[in-house]
Amino acid sequence: MAELSRRRLFGAGAVAVGGAALGWGAGAVTGNREAEAAPSVVPFRGARQAGVATAPQAHTTFVGLDLRPGVDRAGLVRLLKVWTSDAERLTAGRGALADTEPDLATRPARLTVTVGFGPGVFRAAGLEERRPSWLKPLPPFAIDRLEERWNDGDLLLQVGSDDQVTVAHTLRVLLKGARTVATVRWTQRGFRRAQGTEPEGTTMRNLMGQVDGTVNPRAGTGDFDTLVFSDGAQQPWLADGTSVVIRRIRLDLDGWDELDRPGREVVMGRRMSDGAPLTGDAEHDEPDFDAVDAGGITVIAPNSHIALARSADPGQRFHRRAYNYDEAPAGEAVSDSGLIFVTYQADPQAQFVPVQQRLSDADLFNTWSTPIGSAVFAIPPGCAPGGYLGEQLLGG
Amino acid sequence: MAELSRRRLFGAGAVAVGGAALGWGAGAVTGNREAEAAPSVVPFRGARQAGVATAPQAHTTFVGLDLRPGVDRAGLVRLLKVWTSDAERLTAGRGALADTEPDLATRPARLTVTVGFGPGVFRAAGLEERRPSWLKPLPPFAIDRLEERWNDGDLLLQVGSDDQVTVAHTLRVLLKGARTVATVRWTQRGFRRAQGTEPEGTTMRNLMGQVDGTVNPRAGTGDFDTLVFSDGAQQPWLADGTSVVIRRIRLDLDGWDELDRPGREVVMGRRMSDGAPLTGDAEHDEPDFDAVDAGGITVIAPNSHIALARSADPGQRFHRRAYNYDEAPAGEAVSDSGLIFVTYQADPQAQFVPVQQRLSDADLFNTWSTPIGSAVFAIPPGCAPGGYLGEQLLGG
Ligand code: HEM
Ligand code: HEM
Repeated sequence: MAELSRRRLFGAGAVAVGGAALGWGAGAVTGNREAEAAPSVVPFRGARQAGVATAPQAHTTFVGLDLRPGVDRAGLVRLLKVWTSDAERLTAGRGALADTEPDLATRPARLTVTVGFGPGVFRAAGLEERRPSWLKPLPPFAIDRLEERWNDGDLLLQVGSDDQVTVAHTLRVLLKGARTVATVRWTQRGFRRAQGTEPEGTTMRNLMGQVDGTVNPRAGTGDFDTLVFSDGAQQPWLADGTSVVIRRIRLDLDGWDELDRPGREVVMGRRMSDGAPLTGDAEHDEPDFDAVDAGGITVIAPNSHIALARSADPGQRFHRRAYNYDEAPAGEAVSDSGLIFVTYQADPQAQFVPVQQRLSDADLFNTWSTPIGSAVFAIPPGCAPGGYLGEQLLGG
Repeated sequence: MAELSRRRLFGAGAVAVGGAALGWGAGAVTGNREAEAAPSVVPFRGARQAGVATAPQAHTTFVGLDLRPGVDRAGLVRLLKVWTSDAERLTAGRGALADTEPDLATRPARLTVTVGFGPGVFRAAGLEERRPSWLKPLPPFAIDRLEERWNDGDLLLQVGSDDQVTVAHTLRVLLKGARTVATVRWTQRGFRRAQGTEPEGTTMRNLMGQVDGTVNPRAGTGDFDTLVFSDGAQQPWLADGTSVVIRRIRLDLDGWDELDRPGREVVMGRRMSDGAPLTGDAEHDEPDFDAVDAGGITVIAPNSHIALARSADPGQRFHRRAYNYDEAPAGEAVSDSGLIFVTYQADPQAQFVPVQQRLSDADLFNTWSTPIGSAVFAIPPGCAPGGYLGEQLLGG
């Protein structure tokens, strides 16, 4: 009976099974045939877009697009209706309507598709007055070495899944659907540990070996919703939407190699082994920024990364969701690595910029990290049954 | 008791747990804490190198390297001893000796490191007489559109794992160890479905949606060992070694889109839905190349991919291990995709070349697939306890 209803639930492939969905892995190893038949589905429809509060998947690709000249509001509506239909089907494990490889769609593996709008959307749609005031490039920071090829964009596609085949297929479907309306400006491919490689809830390590993501507002707890999602006060259409900042930050792994472990720990303010603050014993211990050693020196340096990244003002916080990147090295290099440093917040100017400014001014870690790309997008709210992504902006 | 010995076995991280090792996924979902503590380890030491008969991991990166001028036999021996030590430790889930990020080494996720030798190794070592006669670039084929940046190389590193963080960290360690001896010539990053996404034993689909890998000599069955591994008759040092051919084959997904499903099936000789031959009902049914339809036309076209790839001579077979690639598209393109088409065989000239020649001459599928890179390496045998990779060649 329970068996049967689970089969019904999962069999269709179109039914949401909740945020932390069941993986194939379970069934494959335990021999549980029911579990084997269950694709991992993250619900697509809802008040908010998936992919923001969703636990990060093993693979996420971010694509910035440029609108073709002459695209207007009607053209944008057509595109967003197609993307909505495609995303709804693909996230549920079904081929898109015009899918030429529907057989690749059957394993969503927690697939999420998240769409963002750059300033160009508001220009093209003739809706400048609905552009959130924060939707513009971040101010320049002294540490920036931005390369045009990683900056800005009119539209964003964020496609995440625990399976890279699914990411590739989904992106191809969505980009084909956009062909007459937009071209690819940049593609950034990020990864974390594979699903199941580490116990659930383990904080990721980045390619420098740092435990990265310890202090981070978590979905469903505290003031996460207020910090991350818009209340619609400034722009009513954006209620339950958010903003994303995408910084491509190159990590100088060779330089980092020259630093010993204690040096690395001073720079970050946390231990390499387990991510505990230098004043604590375990990863999630509260750092004591006032503690001093025998010589009267603060244990956590005031210009360490965590001391400067921490805000006294609780409004200067945001949700981080970093991904590693590791591209083919050129010339004498042995790696081209870094972070796709992604944050979500209701207002990037108010919440993100002050922190980035403080880090730019004084962070010890700047010696080993260089922002080479920067982009900001508005993430419209989710769509209710029958609606399409962006309807709140474009439909009214 | 059983619990305890499993804990011992897996806990050390250094102990082989067999080819199809236990994944973290299982434990994470079932709540089995023993399984959670078990990193997935593929044995490194053995008569043959791992990564050939090993079930393909979700991620494999192939790196071709150029030896720096002046590197001699002693320099190669030093490099291979370092690589052996690094690979042995990393595959077991331990940091390498000079590892600056040992914390990244703890999740091997079936990590394998496979090393190959191009002709340059024999030149540099002054061992031309020990070069297998087949170790040279493949003959040119009419379909080839080779780009120098994907061809050849003096050394090969093949690093496979179900976890991309592990691949990135392992490659960085190995390439740092090679810095004074070699530079990166090319990097090719391939992927398949994530571990656990599909039931074990499912044949992969490539990005064209084809079931790819049905007819393929399988490790531990039939004449696999004879086909794949050298018996040492030509070159005694190579006994239990093999060769790898790495063809980078661009797939024209846009062109493929214009072909309907029946057209695609004619081209390949198999059904898109399940990979069954056009004369059969299930994927593993034996194709009937003589069967004709009501009009007297053969059901499987004689110039279909499978008809031409099949050899009457059982010696013209090899082990295929294809990986998808999907790089960032440029300009108006919406994808840059294809296969890293990799084969292992005792003698590529005798086994691989005749098949590639037949396909080049007449394969219907050539319209949608273009070889853009080609490389051949000798894969030396594995190393026994205390030995190092390549010792059979360089040590004597
Ligand atoms: C590639 C560059 C960066 C790396 C590798 C990095 C790494 C880290 C690490 C290891 C921690 C400590 C553990 C944790 O709480 O997550 C941390 C904390 C943090 N980082 Fe970064 N970070 C980078 C850039 C940035 C940037 C650009 C910002 C914001 C502008 C930022 C904001 C934060 C915040 C808010 C915290 C938490 C501070 C607290 O304890 O309250 N980080 N980062
Ligand atoms: C990107 C290029 C290629 C693609 C997408 C591709 C795809 C396929 C597919 C779908 C099959 C049928 C299912 C199977 O048995 O695996 C197949 C079979 C086969 N392919 Fe390819 N292939 C490609 C290139 C090649 C090349 C270059 C060779 C060898 C030179 C080759 C050799 C074979 C062989 C030996 C078989 C099995 C034939 C048999 O049934 O005996 N393929 N390939």
